[in-house]
Order: sequence, then structure tokens, then C-alpha cells
Amino acid sequence: MEILEGILTRRSIRRYTCERVPDEMIMHILEAGMYAPSAVNRQPWHFIVIRSKETFRQIMKIHPYAGMLESADVAFLVCGDTKLEHGPGYWVVDCSAATQNMLLAIHGLGLGGVWVGIHPREQRKEAMRQIFGLPENIQPAALIACGRPAESKPHPQRFRKEKIHWEIW
Amino acid sequence: MEILEGILTRRSIRRYTCERVPDEMIMHILEAGMYAPSAVNRQPWHFIVIRSKETFRQIMKIHPYAGMLESADVAFLVCGDTKLEHGPGYWVVDCSAATQNMLLAIHGLGLGGVWVGIHPREQRKEAMRQIFGLPENIQPAALIACGRPAESKPHPQRFRKEKIHWEIW
Repeated sequence: MEILEGILTRRSIRRYTCERVPDEMIMHILEAGMYAPSAVNRQPWHFIVIRSKETFRQIMKIHPYAGMLESADVAFLVCGDTKLEHGPGYWVVDCSAATQNMLLAIHGLGLGGVWVGIHPREQRKEAMRQIFGLPENIQPAALIACGRPAESKPHPQRFRKEKIHWEIW
Repeated sequence: MEILEGILTRRSIRRYTCERVPDEMIMHILEAGMYAPSAVNRQPWHFIVIRSKETFRQIMKIHPYAGMLESADVAFLVCGDTKLEHGPGYWVVDCSAATQNMLLAIHGLGLGGVWVGIHPREQRKEAMRQIFGLPENIQPAALIACGRPAESKPHPQRFRKEKIHWEIW
């Protein structure tokens, strides 16, 4: 799939078949995250790969919009490292770029995925810290649910001319 | 170019030829940004397209790492809208995903681009607000410099096994 086509056809997929995502694909998705740009190339990220159904259940208990984990085969928790980031607040930017790379890789591999928001909701962050035993310098940024897609979605119209400004606001 | 290949081969390109980037490509890059996911699909972004050499000079005066604008043909200022975002702090996440989509589109089109950090540096944000006359609810997130590449870079090794954690930290 071409890059531009992939960017335009990626959708948030929340229903998955029971088919397993091969380990090799999981490594490709992680690699895609690691090739995101980051401020001063600090790569202030970590990735937790989750396949435990018990952990999925724990997350669904504390996160109001994580119901898609019911059918997900794998999930990724993208975390920022405040000891590695270029300066305060950069981990949010860098981890968001990494998350987007991973979602595009998932789509490019023929899988389906969705960005489940963690940061900037403090309550969700604290719950994730407890579930995964995160050290103080590790900030949970985003969760990605992933599996073989069991739904397809139409192409939306998201191009908005009024969002474009020329030379000045 | 395939998505996965594009993700892995994208590099920060800071030297450009004097060749013009066609308007059609600029629209593709903007469209890529608009197709990023955003919390609750709020699409809390705006894009300023900059081609004025005078504006490039103003930015280079206030930004210590914007020297590549010297040879850039076009630049994009990605901005967040605090009136549109899902909740406080979401615009940073959403605009970072949009910026990454745009960088991948630039690469996919055979152009070169680089992410010039604005947020979270308050001084740079204030200077951009003044240069572009941004309203109070509009937050400058990132600048992208772009042009026909006049440099190529080797493929780095960024895959780090130690960044991957299984099931728990």
C-alpha cells in the first residue's frame, strides 16, 4: 500500500476477528514506532506489548473507552521517559508521532487498530501506572488496540479548505 | 512507496534544491495532516502555508534551529485550537499525529522535510504568535520545512530491543 493511500484510508478499527497477529508483524509495528522522529533524536519512548486477556480486562475496568479490547489480539502501551526526553513536555510530542507511525504500520500490514487515549487524562495515567508497575519517570502516553479487522468503514471526507491559511493567520 | 518502507526510510532533510514544490503536492501534504486521528475526531488543527522568504527570515531570527529555511521552498505551521480540542492538552497529541502524517506524505511524494520544534518551548510559541498574528485559542505546535531534497542520509539503526517490554514493565 502506498504511503499517501495508507494515510488517507486508515480508520479507527474497533472490532477484530479471533485470528492471531503473528509475532513478526508485532515486531514490524514496534519498529515503525521506533523510526518516528523525536526532538534531538532522543527517542524517549518504551513499548509494552500486551496479549494477556486478564490485563485487557483490568484496562477495560478502568478505561471507559477501551471496550474494543474484548476482541483485540494484542495491544501496545506507548510510554514516554521523562529522563530521556529533550525537555519537559517533549515526550508527549515524540510518543504521539511514534503512535501514529504504529497505527499506519498496522494499517499497512492489513491489520486494524485504534488509538485509545491515555495522556492527558491523569486518572487513566495513574491506573495504567498501577496495572503495569511503571517507574516514576515513565509516562503512559497512548494505548493501541490491534487485531485482524472484523469491520470496514467508509472513506470519510476530512479535507477542510477552511483549515488552511496562507502566509498568515 | 510502501507504507512500512516509507516509515523506515523517512529522514529529517534540511537541505533543499531551488526547485519549486507544486501546489498540488502542498494540498496532498495538507490533506495527509487532516486525515490523522484525533481524540473524539475533533480535528483541532489549522495549517498555515508559508512561502514568503521574508517570513522565513523572521522565523530564522527567533528560532535557533530553523536555519534550513534558508533553502526551503515551503513551510507549514501546524497549530492546535484549544476551542476545538476534546479536553485540555489534547491538541498537542492530535497535532503531533497530524505533523507525522505530513512528514510521511512529504517523503512519499519524493520531497524532503523536517520537524522544527515549537511546542513546548514557550518563547518560540510566543514569537510565532506574533509573526503570524495567532488568536489566543490558537497554539503553534510544530513547523515543517519542506523542499526538493538536496541531501540524502544513510539508514540509521533505531530498532532497540531493550525498548520493548512484554506484558508488564
